[in-house]
Amino acid sequence: MDIAQYMTELGSAARQASRVVAASSTAVRNQALLAACDALDGAREQLALANAEDMERGRSNALSAALLDRLELTPTRIDSMLEGLRQVAALPDPVGSISDLNVLPSGIQVGRMRVPLGVIGIIYESRPNVTVEAASLCLKSGNATILRGGSEALASNAAIADCLAQGLQAAGLPVAAIQVLATADRAAVGQMITMPEYVDVIVPRGGKGLIERISKDARVPVIKHLDGVCHVYIDSGADLAMAQAIAINAKTQRYGTCNTMETLLIAASEAAAVLPPLAAAYDEAGVELRGCEQTRAILPNILAATEQDWYEEYLAPVLAIRIVDNLDEAIAHINQYGSQHTDTIVTRDHSRAMRFLREVDSSSVMVNASTRFADGFEYGLGAEIGISTDKLHARGPVGLEGLTSQKYIVLGEGQVRT
Amino acid sequence: MDIAQYMTELGSAARQASRVVAASSTAVRNQALLAACDALDGAREQLALANAEDMERGRSNALSAALLDRLELTPTRIDSMLEGLRQVAALPDPVGSISDLNVLPSGIQVGRMRVPLGVIGIIYESRPNVTVEAASLCLKSGNATILRGGSEALASNAAIADCLAQGLQAAGLPVAAIQVLATADRAAVGQMITMPEYVDVIVPRGGKGLIERISKDARVPVIKHLDGVCHVYIDSGADLAMAQAIAINAKTQRYGTCNTMETLLIAASEAAAVLPPLAAAYDEAGVELRGCEQTRAILPNILAATEQDWYEEYLAPVLAIRIVDNLDEAIAHINQYGSQHTDTIVTRDHSRAMRFLREVDSSSVMVNASTRFADGFEYGLGAEIGISTDKLHARGPVGLEGLTSQKYIVLGEGQVRT
Repeated sequence: MDIAQYMTELGSAARQASRVVAASSTAVRNQALLAACDALDGAREQLALANAEDMERGRSNALSAALLDRLELTPTRIDSMLEGLRQVAALPDPVGSISDLNVLPSGIQVGRMRVPLGVIGIIYESRPNVTVEAASLCLKSGNATILRGGSEALASNAAIADCLAQGLQAAGLPVAAIQVLATADRAAVGQMITMPEYVDVIVPRGGKGLIERISKDARVPVIKHLDGVCHVYIDSGADLAMAQAIAINAKTQRYGTCNTMETLLIAASEAAAVLPPLAAAYDEAGVELRGCEQTRAILPNILAATEQDWYEEYLAPVLAIRIVDNLDEAIAHINQYGSQHTDTIVTRDHSRAMRFLREVDSSSVMVNASTRFADGFEYGLGAEIGISTDKLHARGPVGLEGLTSQKYIVLGEGQVRT
Repeated sequence: MDIAQYMTELGSAARQASRVVAASSTAVRNQALLAACDALDGAREQLALANAEDMERGRSNALSAALLDRLELTPTRIDSMLEGLRQVAALPDPVGSISDLNVLPSGIQVGRMRVPLGVIGIIYESRPNVTVEAASLCLKSGNATILRGGSEALASNAAIADCLAQGLQAAGLPVAAIQVLATADRAAVGQMITMPEYVDVIVPRGGKGLIERISKDARVPVIKHLDGVCHVYIDSGADLAMAQAIAINAKTQRYGTCNTMETLLIAASEAAAVLPPLAAAYDEAGVELRGCEQTRAILPNILAATEQDWYEEYLAPVLAIRIVDNLDEAIAHINQYGSQHTDTIVTRDHSRAMRFLREVDSSSVMVNASTRFADGFEYGLGAEIGISTDKLHARGPVGLEGLTSQKYIVLGEGQVRT
């Protein structure tokens, strides 16, 4: 296969399809989503066969148990793919909404209309359900997609792509509106991220290594999500019962998620009261603690945290703890060591809460709530394609709106400029 | 000078200053702008001397008359720099505004807060007044700036930078909030666009060549503005007097601006009626016409347009004219040959107006108004740092809001995730 030619054809077809999808009605796009849902439901046998093929190849390639688990398409996982499609179909359509239509002194009315981005490239790893999730969000928001899944899921993704194509056809939309790469050749990714004439934005979903590689080489904008080094800061005078509940939940509700707390900051005035019961609760949950010197003065049995610990995204039952003098030190710590993902303050003080909200430079900043809420569903976006720790365009959980842009519209009655 | 070290120090100082500026109050930032205005007003003599030095060097380097004109800082131009600073100080501050604060089922309130982008790099050419314009918009929106002006304006820009620094000092803000490069070495630009750790976004202002070079090499997001190949489409059944007024204004009000019409599209049904009087008016204005075959059947004396003409941004008294069958052909032409800048339809038909608004994929799409309105001032943004033809982040005229981002804020009362 000539990869360069293949990708050019794919890109050009996506660009053309994107214009048709952008001009299609909400009803037509929803029809495609629901028809794809029916097609997937009717193809459970083919999906199972294709997935078994991937699983077998995975086993003979000695994939890890964790990877094999992500790869597997169980009946329950297919059910939730279908449910996801129905949910996306039910979401409000962001495309075409007009806001801020004001009359200017010249007499023209100026406003902004929400429009699709165009062609979105998604690069992801082993989970085949991402194919349905990502494609449905892109289609709903009026975009065409090019999907590049993991090489280990090639057969499963191809079977899913067939069903998505049936959905598009049933609604009279071009099948090139959703294209899944039929090759595992890495050169295809290199091509995909360097053809701005065909691809408007790349959304990588996967480990930090994947995202860093893509960001480094891309010539197309990338909506990226790197680390989640999230903090909880227990402020002086905080409600300590609330502080403990949040600190426990933010760390232990799930260990492997990007919005899990990795470093706990405590105002010096509260440390002696809050640390011993917290340490007991973490001990019970099996969380290893690593503390600053002051922390170890109160909890002498824990490990010493090194400078590196403040930068660490453990994604594991490990927590770094640092005692700080005050809010200023907490904010400085977060802005220096954090990853601009999600940070929360537990406080009773209104003006310190407002300062924390303003001055912590992260994509989600919270008062008196667990960092675990940083999520498209919890924020009411309906679904998310990822969480952006970038500043431009989209920041935080990216839902349908993040897959659109706003253009200016001007309504006149013959005005000319003088 | 060790450029790499110089840029690293500059970048690091900008990053630190950006945190102070982001946390500063509107009043303090306005105070800095007004104090800079006073400093410039009091430094007219120094500005004149510095500018004379640049002009003299320019003359001995045989700069073109046009470049020398742009370089010159006349008393009137200094007056408008001062007026610009006062206007920016008077604009509403976008930073800190909170929108869409809704209560979610979990009980948390989720909203979005507008925040500065951080450090903005501006790369521009010979006009020293851009130094004041760009720096003031960035400061007002809570950002730090690194400015790299043209080498021919080095002395003028340094004199302006002194005054801006005085303004910052008077308000107690760090002088590193506005830094003007003290070197004309091109390596400094190369460094500036590849240090994402210190610079959040680059805004190049200048010719297409400059912007293409920067976009190609940048490792930092670029808000860019390439061509302005703008269209007017005269729809079937349009008010022909209005159509003529708009077509004349869009082409002849100014030739060198990016929102000037470069191609006129006319529905076949209107061509015979509208072309002769339009041609007479263009002839009187000294505009050269280049037409498609059908156009030349009506205006036999004009030049034939080539395929290349449809892509051309003349920035001159030249206009390409094409007759199209209908709205579909007009939209297809614009989406194929246009530059996604500004396009307008002249029509009486509501549903065709709405289709044009939806389906033309440009940063400004207009109905019954001259393309010349595509401008930050005319849109009520107060000022603009440029016009973006990109899709991500900012599209169309970029004002203060385009120099900010939105983060999520969450207000809880102790909620944890279950």
